[in-house]
Amino acid sequence: METNYSDDIYGRAKVKGSEELEKYYDELKDMDTGALWTVANDIEPWEPHTISAPMFWSYEKLRPFVLEAARLVTPGEAGRRVVYLQNKNRIKEKAAVGLLYAGIQITQPGEFTPAHRHAASALRFIMEGAKGYTIVDGNKIELGVRDFVITPNSAWHEHGVEKDGQTCIWLDGLDIPMINAFEANDYAVLEEEKGGQDLVVAENYSPMSYSGAGVIPIDREWNKPYSPLFKYSWENTRNAIQNLAKVSDGTPYDGYIMRYANPLTGGHPMLTMGATMQMLKPGQKTKAHKHTGSSVFQVAQGEGYVIIDGVKYDFKEKDTFCIPSWLYHEFANTSETEELYLFSFNDFPTVEKLGFYQEKAHPEGHQQLK
Amino acid sequence: METNYSDDIYGRAKVKGSEELEKYYDELKDMDTGALWTVANDIEPWEPHTISAPMFWSYEKLRPFVLEAARLVTPGEAGRRVVYLQNKNRIKEKAAVGLLYAGIQITQPGEFTPAHRHAASALRFIMEGAKGYTIVDGNKIELGVRDFVITPNSAWHEHGVEKDGQTCIWLDGLDIPMINAFEANDYAVLEEEKGGQDLVVAENYSPMSYSGAGVIPIDREWNKPYSPLFKYSWENTRNAIQNLAKVSDGTPYDGYIMRYANPLTGGHPMLTMGATMQMLKPGQKTKAHKHTGSSVFQVAQGEGYVIIDGVKYDFKEKDTFCIPSWLYHEFANTSETEELYLFSFNDFPTVEKLGFYQEKAHPEGHQQLK
Amino acid sequence: METNYSDDIYGRAKVKGSEELEKYYDELKDMDTGALWTVANDIEPWEPHTISAPMFWSYEKLRPFVLEAARLVTPGEAGRRVVYLQNKNRIKEKAAVGLLYAGIQITQPGEFTPAHRHAASALRFIMEGAKGYTIVDGNKIELGVRDFVITPNSAWHEHGVEKDGQTCIWLDGLDIPMINAFEANDYAVLEEEKGGQDLVVAENYSPMSYSGAGVIPIDREWNKPYSPLFKYSWENTRNAIQNLAKVSDGTPYDGYIMRYANPLTGGHPMLTMGATMQMLKPGQKTKAHKHTGSSVFQVAQGEGYVIIDGVKYDFKEKDTFCIPSWLYHEFANTSETEELYLFSFNDFPTVEKLGFYQEKAHPEGHQQLK
Amino acid sequence: METNYSDDIYGRAKVKGSEELEKYYDELKDMDTGALWTVANDIEPWEPHTISAPMFWSYEKLRPFVLEAARLVTPGEAGRRVVYLQNKNRIKEKAAVGLLYAGIQITQPGEFTPAHRHAASALRFIMEGAKGYTIVDGNKIELGVRDFVITPNSAWHEHGVEKDGQTCIWLDGLDIPMINAFEANDYAVLEEEKGGQDLVVAENYSPMSYSGAGVIPIDREWNKPYSPLFKYSWENTRNAIQNLAKVSDGTPYDGYIMRYANPLTGGHPMLTMGATMQMLKPGQKTKAHKHTGSSVFQVAQGEGYVIIDGVKYDFKEKDTFCIPSWLYHEFANTSETEELYLFSFNDFPTVEKLGFYQEKAHPEGHQQLK
Repeated sequence: METNYSDDIYGRAKVKGSEELEKYYDELKDMDTGALWTVANDIEPWEPHTISAPMFWSYEKLRPFVLEAARLVTPGEAGRRVVYLQNKNRIKEKAAVGLLYAGIQITQPGEFTPAHRHAASALRFIMEGAKGYTIVDGNKIELGVRDFVITPNSAWHEHGVEKDGQTCIWLDGLDIPMINAFEANDYAVLEEEKGGQDLVVAENYSPMSYSGAGVIPIDREWNKPYSPLFKYSWENTRNAIQNLAKVSDGTPYDGYIMRYANPLTGGHPMLTMGATMQMLKPGQKTKAHKHTGSSVFQVAQGEGYVIIDGVKYDFKEKDTFCIPSWLYHEFANTSETEELYLFSFNDFPTVEKLGFYQEKAHPEGHQQLK
Repeated sequence: METNYSDDIYGRAKVKGSEELEKYYDELKDMDTGALWTVANDIEPWEPHTISAPMFWSYEKLRPFVLEAARLVTPGEAGRRVVYLQNKNRIKEKAAVGLLYAGIQITQPGEFTPAHRHAASALRFIMEGAKGYTIVDGNKIELGVRDFVITPNSAWHEHGVEKDGQTCIWLDGLDIPMINAFEANDYAVLEEEKGGQDLVVAENYSPMSYSGAGVIPIDREWNKPYSPLFKYSWENTRNAIQNLAKVSDGTPYDGYIMRYANPLTGGHPMLTMGATMQMLKPGQKTKAHKHTGSSVFQVAQGEGYVIIDGVKYDFKEKDTFCIPSWLYHEFANTSETEELYLFSFNDFPTVEKLGFYQEKAHPEGHQQLK
Repeated sequence: METNYSDDIYGRAKVKGSEELEKYYDELKDMDTGALWTVANDIEPWEPHTISAPMFWSYEKLRPFVLEAARLVTPGEAGRRVVYLQNKNRIKEKAAVGLLYAGIQITQPGEFTPAHRHAASALRFIMEGAKGYTIVDGNKIELGVRDFVITPNSAWHEHGVEKDGQTCIWLDGLDIPMINAFEANDYAVLEEEKGGQDLVVAENYSPMSYSGAGVIPIDREWNKPYSPLFKYSWENTRNAIQNLAKVSDGTPYDGYIMRYANPLTGGHPMLTMGATMQMLKPGQKTKAHKHTGSSVFQVAQGEGYVIIDGVKYDFKEKDTFCIPSWLYHEFANTSETEELYLFSFNDFPTVEKLGFYQEKAHPEGHQQLK
Repeated sequence: METNYSDDIYGRAKVKGSEELEKYYDELKDMDTGALWTVANDIEPWEPHTISAPMFWSYEKLRPFVLEAARLVTPGEAGRRVVYLQNKNRIKEKAAVGLLYAGIQITQPGEFTPAHRHAASALRFIMEGAKGYTIVDGNKIELGVRDFVITPNSAWHEHGVEKDGQTCIWLDGLDIPMINAFEANDYAVLEEEKGGQDLVVAENYSPMSYSGAGVIPIDREWNKPYSPLFKYSWENTRNAIQNLAKVSDGTPYDGYIMRYANPLTGGHPMLTMGATMQMLKPGQKTKAHKHTGSSVFQVAQGEGYVIIDGVKYDFKEKDTFCIPSWLYHEFANTSETEELYLFSFNDFPTVEKLGFYQEKAHPEGHQQLK
């Protein structure tokens, strides 16, 4: 079915203006109503209408300001010391892209955040430091660089760094703009006197319980809508991708890519957000496509570039960028010797559940630079 | 776990201003970033933050303008002649409430809309007229007053009224604001020369195939993410509720209430939106509660009132109103002899899938009027 | 992939006998073992191996013996007065066909069975009488002729006929041979002093709560693995099939056929057994096919014949017959004026869940009579 | 609800014999029917009725006969050289226990079985040898000692040992008795001329694609009812259990136990059969319980004993035994220094799907020896 992308065709609103109509529109407005044909072509575009802008945040530039945050405010005053990433077309929503929030959080040795919880879901990707930890639902878990960690909706959580550790910096991802669009977020804090959550299981209980591929402890009690595996270690993920790369040609648009999954269901680790790690071999370039759904990327290891909507962004380790819904994009690893690893988180679980997913390959395989 | 609803407590952002900080904030802004503690308390409210306003649209006032639309513009110019309902706090989104669109559509005898489809899902509740029809996926279906009809995501559809029919008016509900928030809507029209969809099955195929309670034709081919039952007749729905009322006391907050369901799954008829019909017996008053999720109500039959967030709205048949997320509400049937029927559609399927649902009973059972 | 249906080909066991082998086989036997190649061709047949025989039970012949049962023994002595139907190739299992039990039960006015429950699932199809009732999980339900009723696994149940009713006769179907093959059945009775279950809801609560097509009471509490709808009335089922027949050509092998379904899931009403009602129009003949899965049929209304594995069985209302797994079968309505209705129950839910289903159309459309 | 386990109580069949009744029973028999009350107490036992016997097969005794099979017959004659394990109460079904088949298969260097497939599902646990391989659905996979491998229903498969390998012996498990009870098994062989399946992916494609815990390649094409992971390596499984044992106290009846799972769903690897690996720490003894469902155990590593229904069986590595449905059982590791690992496969996926599962702890914790 071919589509003529003009609005001056049969089936589109093309009512001409008139004085009588203007008066009618005013009267409608007074009654908190309007005429659909005056807005239909806007709210029902031919193809998905991208609101969010592509954005790129250099870690080299950003890092000093993240360190500065730790100097300027205390955890007690700020709750959490985070520099959030602001999409210039999603300012009201405080979104990095689409309906996703992203921020860079810093915690110094001996510091910890107050224990809290919210209906919003959170995830983290560890960028720097040593001996960081998170406590989720009473389970204390050690954090290493490039580990992926979840803090699901309404789970109590707090983070910190051991006194003998090193300053930790990580990427936070949350669905705050999404849940606020649905007018449904909330917040609670544990009283200061409690000094944090009680630990209810052994340290690293969750990752040590689900450390094998395709083997699951017989535990009939889990009935929460999120993964019982809270931390996905870098070593496990990288090894799995390297194994995959030995027996597969990967995918045309994303190289060798794996999604983090709930081992009990195979689904996404949380209800609203997913995350993936992808690898491009030295010198590898992917083809361009576009799809609905929004992603925030961070370079886990290596260097290269991404072309989004005809604009090229060179990147190095720890740089962050976003790819909005329905913009063409393609990746390249510019090293001839090292693998490139890209972490990203996204709203794909939501987009899929709501039936909003669609995809389109670039007709020429690659974009022209603008 | 008790919560102190002040922001001047442990765990909330309470950083005091300073010149140094102002300068820091400006520098962050220049890099498309910000300090989380300056916005955290806003985007992470203690309880769900209601954006949408409660709204009430009197059909007595609205009807003349709907009829006027049919006089002022043709289907060929306007596509569809619809007066849409505008929530005063959701103007940018063109939403009636939350992320839901609602409108009142008119079609005169012999008229029909161009055949079209969109990633957004649509539903209708028939208010007036005779011999209206819809054609969904090549299936022509007759529409009667108070029937509930679906036009699921990406299904081709068109509507009309037979030449010997009477002007039809119906309530349209769509998830357009939601799908646009996710930057994912699209649109296609069937060329005018085709004169509409080809009919691929007998008239009323869908409702006649699924007309029994708990009996399903053995048809292994359906793999679409929506109900194969496109029309839920008023007679079937009303009888089912009246039967329910003979053996049950109903629910405390909604009287005798049934949801429209996909007979193949028991789930909602479409991915993003649900709909219900509820009945209050003569003189019945429900208790007050609030929950996340947004609804548009229309009075199907009878009279009464609703109290939303402490404000009372008296209603008659065909009046429309909306209940935003997390506002207390309660219903009353003011007739001593007739049953009251309220139709409503909502975003509950989405809210549930995303894990955003929560509910709270009013501590005193009923609200104080403001 | 063509298959040579001889055992004298590559890939099949074709070891010749020898004295040395005989000795070896004896030694294996002494250790409770055996050589696979001596049994492989038997336990791994080319096509599904039908054990059960086609069977036909004339109600005209059977009815006097059912009435006699009521004269010979009391409910107190017998528990339930039932003449069970015995497949001549499934005698050990007490199966009517496959792993399914069937029986004809009789209850006289004023009588009732002891309340009991078992891990096995049960269903009934009402053949005769008036004012029969069943009580399932504390819900008393009136039974009419041709109603289909379920008594799911481990649900307390008892049946009776009101004092002013008429002798009731019904077909019982159970998965007893199946659950016994898995060594998993059990049994419990309610003490006589209790005089039966306490009624916990209004009479007919279940069918009156789910009496509409595609509308479901909002009841979030049901978490049982079976349908909340315990009775499917004849009127509802027949009307639904007649509606279906107005807009559809039905299926080639079964005419106009509907399955009884759990309205909350669209699945089968119980875990192990399904049931269907099918209609053939006056003079209609279906084509022949075969499939895995076993069925017990009863003629609900009308007359005709079935050809099973090349043998023709003429039938009248209330006659019972079975179709074993993997035997060709086809149906005919021999009336030129009346519809034919066939009720059947089956093990299809089990066969589907275990991945054991396969189907084959008869290559010539119809069977040759043997 | 207390149960009186006598049949001479209200609600059980307790009809006394009489000449009149004997005559009646004979007449019923002539019509292929019977009186339920003559068999009801047998087919509806108070508690699950165990048919299968506990069995123990010493590998020390069995191994010479397995080697002998390789001498006595060729793969071309026998198809597969297997000594099957025969439960003495399930002889007709050729079952090791319940409706499960088990056998010990041998393959010598340079040998391979004909490629074949069947509706029955198969699994293997590797006992001895080097450079064995399986080819499933065109995917060749290397087999190591204590690896667990699946050959799902209707998947083409063949096995062999490389010419430079060592004689391989493994345990086969199949659901043949189950599928035959449902009259649904079938068989096909690939013509000899083809010389086996074509390889469609790189060697070890399946295990190398799913080698990480909780990470899944983005592959939207898998729609088969079984796991895409065909081999679960011993190293991965043992490490996962050892990790689990560091943070958990295990389970009271099975020690530290994990089930093999489909990484795409978290469910069992195949539709009908599951498998587990469990570890007991040095000196550990579990408590006794019983449950429905049948299991075949093989000692993967270590030594100890099992008590089944009051009888103690001492075991060493590679010994095989079975635990029938509803018999009490408990395990012990008799080594004071080494861990004990028990592999087992079972029909739990079937028992769970059909709603037949129930469990009972031994009232005194441990059994008395008979």
